[in-house]
Amino acid sequence: MTYCVGLLLNEGMVLLSDTRTNAGLDNISCYKKMYTFEEPGERVIVILTAGSLSVTQTTLARLQEAIDDPDASEETSIMKARTMLKVADLVGAHLSEVANDITNKLVRNSQATASATMILGGQRKGGAMRLFLIYPEGNYIEATPDTPYLQVGEHKYGKPILDRVVSPTTSLMDGQKAALLSMDSTLRSNLSVGMPLDLAVLRDGDCALHEQRRIEQGDPVFAEMSQAWSAELKDAFTQIKI
Amino acid sequence: MTYCVGLLLNEGMVLLSDTRTNAGLDNISCYKKMYTFEEPGERVIVILTAGSLSVTQTTLARLQEAIDDPDASEETSIMKARTMLKVADLVGAHLSEVANDITNKLVRNSQATASATMILGGQRKGGAMRLFLIYPEGNYIEATPDTPYLQVGEHKYGKPILDRVVSPTTSLMDGQKAALLSMDSTLRSNLSVGMPLDLAVLRDGDCALHEQRRIEQGDPVFAEMSQAWSAELKDAFTQIKI
Repeated sequence: MTYCVGLLLNEGMVLLSDTRTNAGLDNISCYKKMYTFEEPGERVIVILTAGSLSVTQTTLARLQEAIDDPDASEETSIMKARTMLKVADLVGAHLSEVANDITNKLVRNSQATASATMILGGQRKGGAMRLFLIYPEGNYIEATPDTPYLQVGEHKYGKPILDRVVSPTTSLMDGQKAALLSMDSTLRSNLSVGMPLDLAVLRDGDCALHEQRRIEQGDPVFAEMSQAWSAELKDAFTQIKI
Repeated sequence: MTYCVGLLLNEGMVLLSDTRTNAGLDNISCYKKMYTFEEPGERVIVILTAGSLSVTQTTLARLQEAIDDPDASEETSIMKARTMLKVADLVGAHLSEVANDITNKLVRNSQATASATMILGGQRKGGAMRLFLIYPEGNYIEATPDTPYLQVGEHKYGKPILDRVVSPTTSLMDGQKAALLSMDSTLRSNLSVGMPLDLAVLRDGDCALHEQRRIEQGDPVFAEMSQAWSAELKDAFTQIKI
């Protein structure tokens, strides 16, 4: 399983993913689910992935191939596409094509299917920050001020905290905190979501990664935040009267 | 959808259910999902239901018929069965039989299936309090000190708070609070779970309902608790440093 979340705030964007992948219950591995593409000052794109690893890896490999192609054009490369909407189209098209290819192979042999879902956030110079959730079929929805966050994977455990504290006016720092606490609730309640975490922060207008870091298992800051949150929740619980 | 939760604490049991039922997205009704059976001082049984309404209503109707039957015996009536384990067997047997009957009818006509899941809590004189989760197939699991709560229906939104604050030594009052806050998180995040709520509280050894009440939409105490919890969570969020 997986948990990825993206926040679209007035100040910028926060994107966070876990790294746990499992094939069955007893084959658990660590794979990066965050992919970043950057031409600082010109364009920044972050993709978070959930679903079949063979689908997500192949999709990203094809997107990278298209970028590296000497004949790359605004029709083929997400680093040249004219708008973020066109980037979402390209990612969606590759995603659904790869999922179809793989499912065709699987169905012949095992009646299985494979698919994936992605979060795509980014900004090109002169354009607005945009955050999309791309469905396995290649269509997508976009975050708006009414619903300034998007989640993929095991999204339910971490939704209540987002519903309560995230709005477009939330600061980038509070956005990081909300995303990390949302992840913390998910980690506690579902073993198939696991550390380390990948965090990316984009500031509006920078068209570059403002911050990107990996939070390792046992990271003292995350561990302290997690313990403090537990303590605060227990305190809050004690304060409530019924 | 539905959310029901049962807590097995040293002091007693807390059982809570919502009342929203929907057939499709646009046919929403209010149905009780909590059924209580009581012979005060001798035996108390509470059943919470999630799943197809036709399955749960028919199952409960058959259990009631068996109780009312003049020939009711410890083999047929949950009010006469010798142990709570036998009660769980009876409920499970009726549940799987009804689900099978209904699914057979549905499959002939529409390829659909119907099933339900139940939480069963209770105590007979001289026995321990026991809390079961009964699966659609009639088998069941039981709450233990390691995992002193059971949930059915839309369980994920409300799990983080239970994971953090509920243990067997939690007081009955705090247990009610935890169940209500768990429900509150679920109500906020999933429209298919809705007010009013049914709450039952059992004290160990009473073999009777210590408290049973319906919490209506707009109930001032619940509304105040919900607002206070929101405020406390926002405060807690502000306190956390990253």
